Amino acid sequence: MLLKILELVGIAAFAASGALVGVTKRFDIFGVCVVGVFTGIGGGIVRDVLLGTHPPTSLTSWPLFGTAAVTSVVVFFVHSTLGKLRREILVLDALGMGLFASTGAAIALDAGAGPLASTLVGATAAIGGGILRDVLVNEVPLLLHRDFYAIPALLGATIVVAGSSVGLAGNTALMIGTVVASTVRLVAMWRNWSLPGPRLPRE
Amino acid sequence: MLLKILELVGIAAFAASGALVGVTKRFDIFGVCVVGVFTGIGGGIVRDVLLGTHPPTSLTSWPLFGTAAVTSVVVFFVHSTLGKLRREILVLDALGMGLFASTGAAIALDAGAGPLASTLVGATAAIGGGILRDVLVNEVPLLLHRDFYAIPALLGATIVVAGSSVGLAGNTALMIGTVVASTVRLVAMWRNWSLPGPRLPRE
Amino acid sequence: MLLKILELVGIAAFAASGALVGVTKRFDIFGVCVVGVFTGIGGGIVRDVLLGTHPPTSLTSWPLFGTAAVTSVVVFFVHSTLGKLRREILVLDALGMGLFASTGAAIALDAGAGPLASTLVGATAAIGGGILRDVLVNEVPLLLHRDFYAIPALLGATIVVAGSSVGLAGNTALMIGTVVASTVRLVAMWRNWSLPGPRLPRE
Repeated sequence: MLLKILELVGIAAFAASGALVGVTKRFDIFGVCVVGVFTGIGGGIVRDVLLGTHPPTSLTSWPLFGTAAVTSVVVFFVHSTLGKLRREILVLDALGMGLFASTGAAIALDAGAGPLASTLVGATAAIGGGILRDVLVNEVPLLLHRDFYAIPALLGATIVVAGSSVGLAGNTALMIGTVVASTVRLVAMWRNWSLPGPRLPRE
Repeated sequence: MLLKILELVGIAAFAASGALVGVTKRFDIFGVCVVGVFTGIGGGIVRDVLLGTHPPTSLTSWPLFGTAAVTSVVVFFVHSTLGKLRREILVLDALGMGLFASTGAAIALDAGAGPLASTLVGATAAIGGGILRDVLVNEVPLLLHRDFYAIPALLGATIVVAGSSVGLAGNTALMIGTVVASTVRLVAMWRNWSLPGPRLPRE
Repeated sequence: MLLKILELVGIAAFAASGALVGVTKRFDIFGVCVVGVFTGIGGGIVRDVLLGTHPPTSLTSWPLFGTAAVTSVVVFFVHSTLGKLRREILVLDALGMGLFASTGAAIALDAGAGPLASTLVGATAAIGGGILRDVLVNEVPLLLHRDFYAIPALLGATIVVAGSSVGLAGNTALMIGTVVASTVRLVAMWRNWSLPGPRLPRE
């Protein structure tokens, strides 16, 4: 039950980030909603396509789709207020990322995928929405060049898969994976962690 | 039979729009064909991937793939004439969009998808080709910022799903959905309808 | 066995090309790896999604995923040396393309796809990684505007499908398809072949 609520929180946070990007690009209300919805449920759709769940649950479930759509509409109308909530949104987004990574891995295990595939599918679910958002608005995906984002996603998914293989209860592994992934992401943001870039001697 | 013909017309119209964009970008003949074919059958491929139809029918059917390919080649060679046919192409494109939305929803219902999923899959089939086209040529998808396009697509798919739930004959619902979606799109173009953009007070 | 090795060589070559692009864009080490891995195994993932193989084999197999990941890390650290190996990389990339086209078509036939679908799926497997790479880094896909790339991919896939329909042994068809596709690609590069662009009289 807690997890269901957290999943909706994650979708809402992702959708809000997408809708805000749409507002920045001055799309009309429908364009803002399309970007917001894609960002909110895109990761889950990619996950389900990879696992062969047809049609993807995000398209069959009113709560999931509805959360993404309503959030996008709300953001369109109250974005000037949301601008001041940027910090809160980043926190929600980190929570959503951790949850998507963990639940994505758990759903993949349930669907019979092996450890490697489950880890990669979970990480993809967590980062897929953001990549779709940035590709749609014609930007280089943020996580490719300045976000410490995919590492915690892989970490969260790995914890769930490892927990499952040592017999940890599913819910416990999910909670640990979510908390660790989200915390690492938050700490990385607050301490401004970054990974080394390439040395480019001549230029 | 009429519907089969209209489906090919829709693919041809979409392929022509994609090939024309490729010509504008000065791609070579093969690049023009790749963009044209992707635009023509991309929406149907996305639809089939979401529904779990493997391989997608657009890849298994010579008439569907062939129509997209031949149209692209023809556009490559006669594009200066086609430039004068822009209005006719937009009409065909609107027809294709309406038909893809309606048939997409009907195919999803046939595949056992629920009402929400069928509506969303239908709309995705109608707008997917255009999004793929614009992502491929590195543009922000038109429908995100100035086209009244996704609303009529959702409308057409909704009509088919609603018609099915009240027991309307499949062909009748398909025709109504197609006509309504295409007409709304055409009227929106001719009257220059647009949706409100975000208020951005400070900038 | 030879084919297994060649498949890994192909993945490594594709991953190296993707990682080098990431280095050029000054991504951090993880961004370089994400682009490299996507480019290395992206074509195979698209192939498996189109065929309904869940989860895609590239996500379930350590050798495939590992080759892409390790190659990307190596490229990140030794890219200044690799800059001098550009020619060797293009040769490996041509080999990989030919192999992906041939094995993609063979895998599609095995999965029960018809001749048209198998040809298109094989070609998609061969060109998919490069398209994903360019879309991710926000460039127009190279093969759309100056590479003689998709033609040899289609050729290799066609040879495998035609060979199968005339009863040629699978391995023989695979070898011929790979060699022909790769050779045509290499000759096209060395002789600087290109396809005609559109005539654009007024501009």
